[in-house]
Amino acid sequence: MGFLDETLSLNYNPVMTGLHLQRMSDLPFTFDVLQTERILLSKYDNHIVRRLSAMTGQFLDQKAYDSLLVAADPILYEIYEVKRPEIAGELMQGLSIVHPGKVGDEYYMTKGHFHSVLDTAEIYYCLRGKGFMVMGTPEGDWAVEPLHPHSVLYVPPRWAHRSVNSSLSEDLVTFFVYPSNAGHDYGSIEKQGFRKLVLEQGGIQTIIDNPSWLSPEER
Amino acid sequence: MGFLDETLSLNYNPVMTGLHLQRMSDLPFTFDVLQTERILLSKYDNHIVRRLSAMTGQFLDQKAYDSLLVAADPILYEIYEVKRPEIAGELMQGLSIVHPGKVGDEYYMTKGHFHSVLDTAEIYYCLRGKGFMVMGTPEGDWAVEPLHPHSVLYVPPRWAHRSVNSSLSEDLVTFFVYPSNAGHDYGSIEKQGFRKLVLEQGGIQTIIDNPSWLSPEER
Repeated sequence: MGFLDETLSLNYNPVMTGLHLQRMSDLPFTFDVLQTERILLSKYDNHIVRRLSAMTGQFLDQKAYDSLLVAADPILYEIYEVKRPEIAGELMQGLSIVHPGKVGDEYYMTKGHFHSVLDTAEIYYCLRGKGFMVMGTPEGDWAVEPLHPHSVLYVPPRWAHRSVNSSLSEDLVTFFVYPSNAGHDYGSIEKQGFRKLVLEQGGIQTIIDNPSWLSPEER
Repeated sequence: MGFLDETLSLNYNPVMTGLHLQRMSDLPFTFDVLQTERILLSKYDNHIVRRLSAMTGQFLDQKAYDSLLVAADPILYEIYEVKRPEIAGELMQGLSIVHPGKVGDEYYMTKGHFHSVLDTAEIYYCLRGKGFMVMGTPEGDWAVEPLHPHSVLYVPPRWAHRSVNSSLSEDLVTFFVYPSNAGHDYGSIEKQGFRKLVLEQGGIQTIIDNPSWLSPEER
């Protein structure tokens, strides 16, 4: 029999009574999404930092890209991953943080990707900031959905997805969950591009056709 | 080319340009987790309401159960589900709300279940309140993990799980995600019981052995 008080309960380690569990990864676990000035995970296994230099050819305004790169190589976004075995039935989760900023008229954004196992979905729970998810299927369908605190986005199977931060002062922070066996295919979308771009021109948010997008026939 | 302002962006309906999408369920969608006095989803497909009468034999104190049932048949918890096709690769999501209260010394709780496809995980993001997730494997391993706002719980594949509200004044509200093909097996855990119960006796939270629990040998 055990006693839990307010303090203990936060760090309570369950006593496992069976001898059937062979891996630590078989145990349930909790962690906190820390609501500090900057949202952080109290536990994660991997921290990905993407700088401007990793996004060659992804932004519309090549001249603005080049000047920004010469001046600095700013961090566009960061991902904190909580890893699980990469098998069906397990779930991957983590935090995505897109920083505020623009390259020319175009907002900071993530590379975007298809899942390698194309028939897998993803859920985004927006925790802070505002922005858009730009999405597209291999066949050329497109969608742009807004993100704001406590909006939840369902990305169905087969849709490539890219987060765009449409605030110029605040991070766009989302908590994501996807099937652990999904994997990431960055190459296809890097080659064909997303069909739409989100810009801010003279204070107005605009969705435009991406002139570099390759239709299915052109790939 | 389209224009989005602050207001429009919240109700922005993407124009689908392809003819490849045959079902509405192929489209991305967003909804809001409304942060009103009571947390609600702006969109859901199914609302499950579980009253005390649905929990026969689950609470320790049968006399307290019977008196409460005679006096009223209180709602113990509610689930709002956002449905998806029940196939691997899709994700199910929703809101779980366990109301505050006790049956004798035992907190209000959910029935709890295994997934029918046992090798499937679940993630809980706690939005409000406090409580515990009581868990167990078919082999008799057990775990109890605390829940509080912005704590995230990973329930690995194979673990039955039950939410317990340890506040006597506030709802325990969690947002959950699990693989769409998981299904629910309520029968097994109803028969064997969870190994541990969470009680409050004289203001002290206590985890005790469930005298009705059937070990794997006794089933």
